[in-house]
Amino acid sequence: MIDLYFAPTPNGWKISVMLEECGLDYQVKWVNIGAGEQFEPDFLAISPNNRIPAIVDHDPIEGDEPISVFETGAILLYLANKAEQFLPHDLPGQIAATEWLMWQMGGLGPMMGQHGHFKLYAPERISYATERYRGEVLRLFGVMDRRLAEHDYLAGKDYSIADMACFPWVQTYKRQEIDLADFANVKRWYEELKQREGLRRGMALGRDKINRNPQDDAEVRKTLFGIKE
Amino acid sequence: MIDLYFAPTPNGWKISVMLEECGLDYQVKWVNIGAGEQFEPDFLAISPNNRIPAIVDHDPIEGDEPISVFETGAILLYLANKAEQFLPHDLPGQIAATEWLMWQMGGLGPMMGQHGHFKLYAPERISYATERYRGEVLRLFGVMDRRLAEHDYLAGKDYSIADMACFPWVQTYKRQEIDLADFANVKRWYEELKQREGLRRGMALGRDKINRNPQDDAEVRKTLFGIKE
Repeated sequence: MIDLYFAPTPNGWKISVMLEECGLDYQVKWVNIGAGEQFEPDFLAISPNNRIPAIVDHDPIEGDEPISVFETGAILLYLANKAEQFLPHDLPGQIAATEWLMWQMGGLGPMMGQHGHFKLYAPERISYATERYRGEVLRLFGVMDRRLAEHDYLAGKDYSIADMACFPWVQTYKRQEIDLADFANVKRWYEELKQREGLRRGMALGRDKINRNPQDDAEVRKTLFGIKE
Repeated sequence: MIDLYFAPTPNGWKISVMLEECGLDYQVKWVNIGAGEQFEPDFLAISPNNRIPAIVDHDPIEGDEPISVFETGAILLYLANKAEQFLPHDLPGQIAATEWLMWQMGGLGPMMGQHGHFKLYAPERISYATERYRGEVLRLFGVMDRRLAEHDYLAGKDYSIADMACFPWVQTYKRQEIDLADFANVKRWYEELKQREGLRRGMALGRDKINRNPQDDAEVRKTLFGIKE
């Protein structure tokens, strides 16, 4: 059994999608990030960066001791190795999956996160920052679009953890006012992935718990964005 | 022989350090990022995200065809597997190295990058953005400090690719005005790593080519930061 420490955010959904796609047994440990539960000592022992998601695997690949993993990229690699799924077995495929997973971790995720912050949550409108991150997000969508023009999936011919890492972030396109029509190959990939049963179940997790307007609550603003008033 | 597509930046040095530490044969292919050479088609075929560094391994682990890798996290994992060095062999150690590598890729790197941008390069002073990223960088240094209070290295008892990923970013602490005295364990780790011969050689690469003030040149501003005037 795997414990999934979770809140309904794009990073959280990467892992619920993977667990559903692999058909692995898991139970959800809800973490109320608006209330600051990610700073509690028990959680920090698992996830020292005070971020969700994290997992504890009570039946790990090796050894008898439960093993914990934080950082979505590390969790996805761990689960792919455990389930022997969604990471290509050939070297070029494995490299490609790792490249695009890292591209999501270091690029698409952080940059969409910053754009979302300045566009939706920051207490002041700062056009330089919003435009900086919007430009970067559009550039990254262009990079992804060119990749998907030549390959069915990010790692090549097979659906992989790289796609699962990107999907929940791409899904924020409406709130971030990105027109998917400008990225025909991303759109084709997105529409296809949306039909997958496992992905749908993973993306549905915690929908009823989403706080769509965290910026409206002073306590949540402070906890999530460090904005002191 | 490995071709290293390189410019002297924190991300570039991660890989020159790793190649030197492993003692792998490589030749440097200089990429003048201020002049926009990262947008040339030959380079994009290797590194579709138009970022340095990237490698081409002419003598790969498997197969006869040269293999290219982009994204520093993917390159570090590839080289660790090739050289069988700097990635622990036991599962907990391997997970820890991957967690902290991902933490660098998704956290320390992007956030220090944003702080550096707003503090050093942006054409206007925007205190909200500078403070946002300064706060995040200090938080991340605190996370790293607590980890290094309990372990010699980020992955545990052995020096690994996770340390090599973080070192070149931590090294920017002076320009980013972060006081290492506030992070005693990071300071101890930093001073120790600085004595390593391989790391020193890797960190020395391209020092004579550094543009310390890219913001002073309108063409470079446009190429590197997308700032149009």
